[in-house]
Amino acid sequence: MAQEDVFKKLVSHCKEYGFVFPSSEIYDGLGAVYDYGQMGVELKNNLKKYWWDSMTLLNDNVVGIDSAIFMHPTIWKASGHVDAFNDPLIDNKDSKKRYRADVLIEDYLAKLDEKIDKEVAKAAKRFGESFDEAQFRATNPRVLENQAKRDEVHARFAKDLNDANFEDLRDLIIECEIVCPISGTRNWTDVRQFNLMFSTEMGSTADGAMKVYLRPETAQGIFVNFLNVQKTGRMKIPFGIAQIGKAFRNEIVARQFIFRMREFEQMEMQFFVRPGEELDWFAKWKQARLNWHKALGLGDQKYRYHDHDKLAHYANAATDIEFEMPFGFKEVEGIHSRTDFDLSQHEKFSGKKMQYFDPELNKSYTPYVIETSIGVDRLFLSVLAGSYCEETLENGETRVVLKLPAQVAPVKLAVMPLVKKDGLPEKANEIINDLKFDFRCQYDEKDSIGKRYRRQDAIGTPFCITVDHDTLNDNCVTIRFRDTMLQERVPINKLHDIISEKVNMKSLFKKINE
Amino acid sequence: MAQEDVFKKLVSHCKEYGFVFPSSEIYDGLGAVYDYGQMGVELKNNLKKYWWDSMTLLNDNVVGIDSAIFMHPTIWKASGHVDAFNDPLIDNKDSKKRYRADVLIEDYLAKLDEKIDKEVAKAAKRFGESFDEAQFRATNPRVLENQAKRDEVHARFAKDLNDANFEDLRDLIIECEIVCPISGTRNWTDVRQFNLMFSTEMGSTADGAMKVYLRPETAQGIFVNFLNVQKTGRMKIPFGIAQIGKAFRNEIVARQFIFRMREFEQMEMQFFVRPGEELDWFAKWKQARLNWHKALGLGDQKYRYHDHDKLAHYANAATDIEFEMPFGFKEVEGIHSRTDFDLSQHEKFSGKKMQYFDPELNKSYTPYVIETSIGVDRLFLSVLAGSYCEETLENGETRVVLKLPAQVAPVKLAVMPLVKKDGLPEKANEIINDLKFDFRCQYDEKDSIGKRYRRQDAIGTPFCITVDHDTLNDNCVTIRFRDTMLQERVPINKLHDIISEKVNMKSLFKKINE
Repeated sequence: MAQEDVFKKLVSHCKEYGFVFPSSEIYDGLGAVYDYGQMGVELKNNLKKYWWDSMTLLNDNVVGIDSAIFMHPTIWKASGHVDAFNDPLIDNKDSKKRYRADVLIEDYLAKLDEKIDKEVAKAAKRFGESFDEAQFRATNPRVLENQAKRDEVHARFAKDLNDANFEDLRDLIIECEIVCPISGTRNWTDVRQFNLMFSTEMGSTADGAMKVYLRPETAQGIFVNFLNVQKTGRMKIPFGIAQIGKAFRNEIVARQFIFRMREFEQMEMQFFVRPGEELDWFAKWKQARLNWHKALGLGDQKYRYHDHDKLAHYANAATDIEFEMPFGFKEVEGIHSRTDFDLSQHEKFSGKKMQYFDPELNKSYTPYVIETSIGVDRLFLSVLAGSYCEETLENGETRVVLKLPAQVAPVKLAVMPLVKKDGLPEKANEIINDLKFDFRCQYDEKDSIGKRYRRQDAIGTPFCITVDHDTLNDNCVTIRFRDTMLQERVPINKLHDIISEKVNMKSLFKKINE
Repeated sequence: MAQEDVFKKLVSHCKEYGFVFPSSEIYDGLGAVYDYGQMGVELKNNLKKYWWDSMTLLNDNVVGIDSAIFMHPTIWKASGHVDAFNDPLIDNKDSKKRYRADVLIEDYLAKLDEKIDKEVAKAAKRFGESFDEAQFRATNPRVLENQAKRDEVHARFAKDLNDANFEDLRDLIIECEIVCPISGTRNWTDVRQFNLMFSTEMGSTADGAMKVYLRPETAQGIFVNFLNVQKTGRMKIPFGIAQIGKAFRNEIVARQFIFRMREFEQMEMQFFVRPGEELDWFAKWKQARLNWHKALGLGDQKYRYHDHDKLAHYANAATDIEFEMPFGFKEVEGIHSRTDFDLSQHEKFSGKKMQYFDPELNKSYTPYVIETSIGVDRLFLSVLAGSYCEETLENGETRVVLKLPAQVAPVKLAVMPLVKKDGLPEKANEIINDLKFDFRCQYDEKDSIGKRYRRQDAIGTPFCITVDHDTLNDNCVTIRFRDTMLQERVPINKLHDIISEKVNMKSLFKKINE
């Protein structure tokens, strides 16, 4: 099945089984905003708990906070977001449609790449095994021409963005003869800078209200509380502060389902270290974070690093952890060595000292920061995409199964009486009442056992327990395992231990450290 | 100690021990917004978990969702918030200060009450045991005069609010000779309506952006997803949908620390029932919610119901659960019978049917709704206020102790080596490594044991474990209980069970059902 189809199926599966609904759906939706349904919220909460506990329990020098979405507006001056958190926009005068100028050019470059690749593929087909791709690329005139064009446009594009030269960016769009996909014309306005922060007015005084922003990232809430936490928590460097919370970006081109949303959730940890030790810590966290993802068991080959060649002006190292989504390898987490940029900026803008006195070195300094920043919704999507399977069964039927890590599955076990009578429902509920505070359970008595298995497969329930007539005599039940579909007869009083071993998050923590 | 002083101490305790920090403090704060520190976030998360699990695990017909803060703007038309979620504001022209007109009059009424009470208290003192208060109130001319004035103003005030007659509201302020506390003058502007919703602009098209609101309550996210959850979750009425999330109100007069904030968190559950059965369900939830609060063990006498005499036009029953804060009995939770108002409004505004087909009755209807709505921050404050104690010890010293319910305490146990040498720190860390994934632990080796106990008392840690030289031989430690300060010698391998019994949330669930 084409990856594009897989993605479409995944999106509709999310809706059909209560994982993700389009926001405000009965009002025909709200762009790039989604709601988590009854299954989605449990999966998301489990993923958040996995992160939170691994940060704050596995590391005795990491503590959490929960800072507000509203912050003093000067914070976004200090962080650079007021001045530099912009997208360059351009309107087509005929269609009245608005585009991101950089995306128009990126799409243009992608088309040139496509042309080149097609040329190469055609030749490869023609020449068969004797085809030397490198040589072909180095000599074919059409490839060379397109490649030269591509390199030229890319270089100018990068320079324009770097210099914030939006006049030339517009000229480039004109020169490349890029047309509006709606009107087909090249009748473009100027490029204008558009800030991605949502703003609102707070308070109401006779003098007017105060303009505040919805935070575009949670990190600044950690930086401005650095001294509060360090002092009241008696923390010694190195130490980290972890936070989970909503952030907001007014994305013009929001796409790919919950991958890029206007309202999203972040899990960020800022780790404060001695200046000069930051690259060692960067390497440690880079490894630790990859281990954390891999411990979920979705397949090690689905992750890769993408080290940044071009760094933000304040960073001295940066990498992404990418996951193989149905639409290609995409960033789910970033690890950044941010130097002392953030704390220094807040020192400058607030006038308050943001220094730490190091008792071992007997001196004060502004700590350096390693950041780990993960998008909850992207993580959620990666886990779903990595778990979604369609399998053909022996009887020729297809089953859709979410092979979710048992530790984060929304429902841990379903308990099913074979029939709706003879005391079997009562017995099933007895089992649920014993287990329900330790594991989220579902009771299901409707339809055939086979149909009930399919429903549990579709939401990723790792264990199904069937209560039959023998159960009333031998106090044993049939436990059926989601991934293997194998069944086993076990005593009811062993259920707790069997399930606990598989769903306890401690098993993930152990894997991280392996 | 006066309750006002207790409150001040509690607020500074919250800051000093990492429970609550003023938001953006290094930028001199942001009005009515607060951040949760390293201890606060754990306490808050535990309270949220207590609520979530009690809703979705204790009740097999309640499921959760997590809908977005951004919603389609028409939703707030349907809910009535665009038209009627207003505060009446008035400016003093001399001081340029803005006030809530209703609060000015409420304060005026409170002053009249105070005058009457003083008169009564004076007389009571004069007459001693023979004082007949009822008779005095019924005959004393000064009391009668003030009471008549009070009743007259109150009646007119209530009518003005009901009729949205803001001209008369202003006249009332003038006639009562209410002055601005800053300028001391009666030079007032007109009263104007001020909507409490924060708004922002979403998207950017050539035609303009869309005005959206930050949700002022989480409830509407449940209503608009009612059919999504009912259908994909195969729910049968009666059933409930629970949600935890942020909400925002541009309060003009925000006060009392985290009790009334501009950004706050709600835990709401909407329970959908058959029309005609709503008052039975209202009674059930009213009782269940009180039991839930009382199970925390802060003292049954600290809670009371406040049944509403005057109901919102769409409600047919409503009550508050109030908690005795240091500033009086205050609402922490509301239980409301909202009829079919919300679903009907959304049916009207969205044009989509919001009906449920009841297979038992074999007919469709718009369900009625019972809502339970609790403010997380208020609950947090109630738990802290109910736990904060200052005690005089035998040696004359004072200890400040948070007698938090062990199940929600941020740190469950502290492990302390008696001295920093002889292998005791290593032994202490061994114990922590065994327990840390089950219970949040803190290691502390600094200062005398007494000082360390004080620090743990101040953050409400229920258990302190001391490792001494004997421990290395007998594998026993001293466990010290926070509230009684009693100490006991126990084997290390018994620690898990001793602590688990007290901190497991299951013990709270049992109490709710008692």
